[in-house]
Amino acid sequence: MFVLSKCRLHNSDARSHRTLPLSSEFALIKRYFEGPAPAGFLGVGDDCALLPVPAGQHLVTTTDMLLEGRHFLSGTDPVALGHKALAVNVSDLAAMGALPLGCLLGLALPDVDHAWLSGFSKGFHDFAKRCGCPLVGGDTTRSDNSIVISVTVMGHVDPALALRRNAAQVNDDIWVSGFLGAPDVALGLLQGRLPENPDVLAATRSALEAPMPPWQFASQLCGVARAALDISDGLAQDLGHILDASACGAELYYERLPMHPALASLPLDTQRRAVLAGGDVYQLCFTAAPEKRNQIKELADAAGVQVTRVGAITADVGLRIVDASGTLITLGVAGFDHFSEEG
Amino acid sequence: MFVLSKCRLHNSDARSHRTLPLSSEFALIKRYFEGPAPAGFLGVGDDCALLPVPAGQHLVTTTDMLLEGRHFLSGTDPVALGHKALAVNVSDLAAMGALPLGCLLGLALPDVDHAWLSGFSKGFHDFAKRCGCPLVGGDTTRSDNSIVISVTVMGHVDPALALRRNAAQVNDDIWVSGFLGAPDVALGLLQGRLPENPDVLAATRSALEAPMPPWQFASQLCGVARAALDISDGLAQDLGHILDASACGAELYYERLPMHPALASLPLDTQRRAVLAGGDVYQLCFTAAPEKRNQIKELADAAGVQVTRVGAITADVGLRIVDASGTLITLGVAGFDHFSEEG
Repeated sequence: MFVLSKCRLHNSDARSHRTLPLSSEFALIKRYFEGPAPAGFLGVGDDCALLPVPAGQHLVTTTDMLLEGRHFLSGTDPVALGHKALAVNVSDLAAMGALPLGCLLGLALPDVDHAWLSGFSKGFHDFAKRCGCPLVGGDTTRSDNSIVISVTVMGHVDPALALRRNAAQVNDDIWVSGFLGAPDVALGLLQGRLPENPDVLAATRSALEAPMPPWQFASQLCGVARAALDISDGLAQDLGHILDASACGAELYYERLPMHPALASLPLDTQRRAVLAGGDVYQLCFTAAPEKRNQIKELADAAGVQVTRVGAITADVGLRIVDASGTLITLGVAGFDHFSEEG
Repeated sequence: MFVLSKCRLHNSDARSHRTLPLSSEFALIKRYFEGPAPAGFLGVGDDCALLPVPAGQHLVTTTDMLLEGRHFLSGTDPVALGHKALAVNVSDLAAMGALPLGCLLGLALPDVDHAWLSGFSKGFHDFAKRCGCPLVGGDTTRSDNSIVISVTVMGHVDPALALRRNAAQVNDDIWVSGFLGAPDVALGLLQGRLPENPDVLAATRSALEAPMPPWQFASQLCGVARAALDISDGLAQDLGHILDASACGAELYYERLPMHPALASLPLDTQRRAVLAGGDVYQLCFTAAPEKRNQIKELADAAGVQVTRVGAITADVGLRIVDASGTLITLGVAGFDHFSEEG
């Protein structure tokens, strides 16, 4: 379904001379996004979407705006963009241990580009289907000269078991899912910040363009893990949010961090920046009591998710990152706020 | 609370030379939108907002994008804009008979204009407080040259009693809440489509800029009314959606339509266009069995809402609008789709 009741295009839009009135053009857009309404959801064309929330669960929700030229490059593959626009929001649900329920999509487009719409809707729908997060409504409108994408996701979680940032305890293990560093390296190569390297770009690009947050595994961590969040701004900075909220510190063992294997040939500085400060990862960083180690590994194995134990929560506040010899690692990276307070 | 975890500003933004880094500037924005988290809601700064949905109720949700220069004029009073950005979405909840639960706000701004933010957040928060729809999260980012506002509202309703578009039955009364025509006349005066008339503008402007959907009354119509929607594109066109969805027709009695009194001095054609085809009303059009007349009037009186019985649902499909003598009224208005199929 696609709830389009708020899709109003005023007559002042009608500067261009087209065969179809704009309202009809934009009515066509909904064809790209319509699908059968899931069982229990209200069907096409009412004022709002109706979704059941399982008994005993709370609604979990977040929203994200993506602007062309700012959050994605103008030439970005629309299939990848559709996937990522939804995936970064589902990653926030995963960070709470919530399972997806449905999503809303706002799209402002400078024109009706059917090739773009076809690709974007395919990427969006394929991931929506994969993670059980159907599109239940949205809004389309015309923008002046660039694309604006607004995605809102809704999920559900037992509020007593939701993974929160303020729940870390001293001596907790610190865990990371998946690999670190690949999205930052891919972005650096695409932007020319890093020297040209087609092999490394080929090996890292999908991590940037098609992140796959571990939403299913994350929901199974409810009642097992303590604090959690998703890594969007870089491990060190994001872990800092857990430390601040939980009023504790942490020691990270650099050699244990699951660096993406494609980074092995890059200079050490590039590796460290990407692993510690590289964003767009959309994997989990979470803490758990040491007695949960086996259970966490079993859950991860069953879900096909790699997890790595990378450090421990300490009573001393601040984040210390040490190499294999126990030497402190410091980084001077712009925007690396938490770490620079320490370094 | 304001969940700002998705507020990422990449370094590529940092073309301007400012005292504060952009990320800090945008962090300041959240001060305008933070408030105490309502009871049962998760507090500030986690990955998502957590909201309880009452037992037995379904989540009801809708989203709307507003672009500067397209959905609002650049000089629009930010207090009114903040109010309206939320009110048009709450109006969609009301159209389902749903009560507000909370909302999310996405804001893309070309710069950090504290006077604008102060006004916008005041208008937004005042209405949020009034209708019990607290801001629970959002996303802020920098845009290139115009403001983009994205609002998502969440509400709740008993799914068995939700007001739907497809529930009208033959011989149902057709009701309208509030007055018709004022927003369209105010917009016409502001845009220069209508001849200058300061008195009429003064009397109609608040209907355009500060719509007040009857959300409380609407929720009391659950189990009383049958079909409902909110009037956003004009009564005739919007009623057409009920007729299409319910596979029936309607007769509207033009003389009974609750025209806003400030329109009395305007030419008849202007009145008719505004009353029948004027949008931005954000009042209800609903149908109900004739035996519900007294109950509806009592509920409306108790809620301080004016309601008017303006027509009846017919077995013959199509919309007929008749004047006091029984003569059919036809209008030739651009964008007046449903009606023009009939006329």
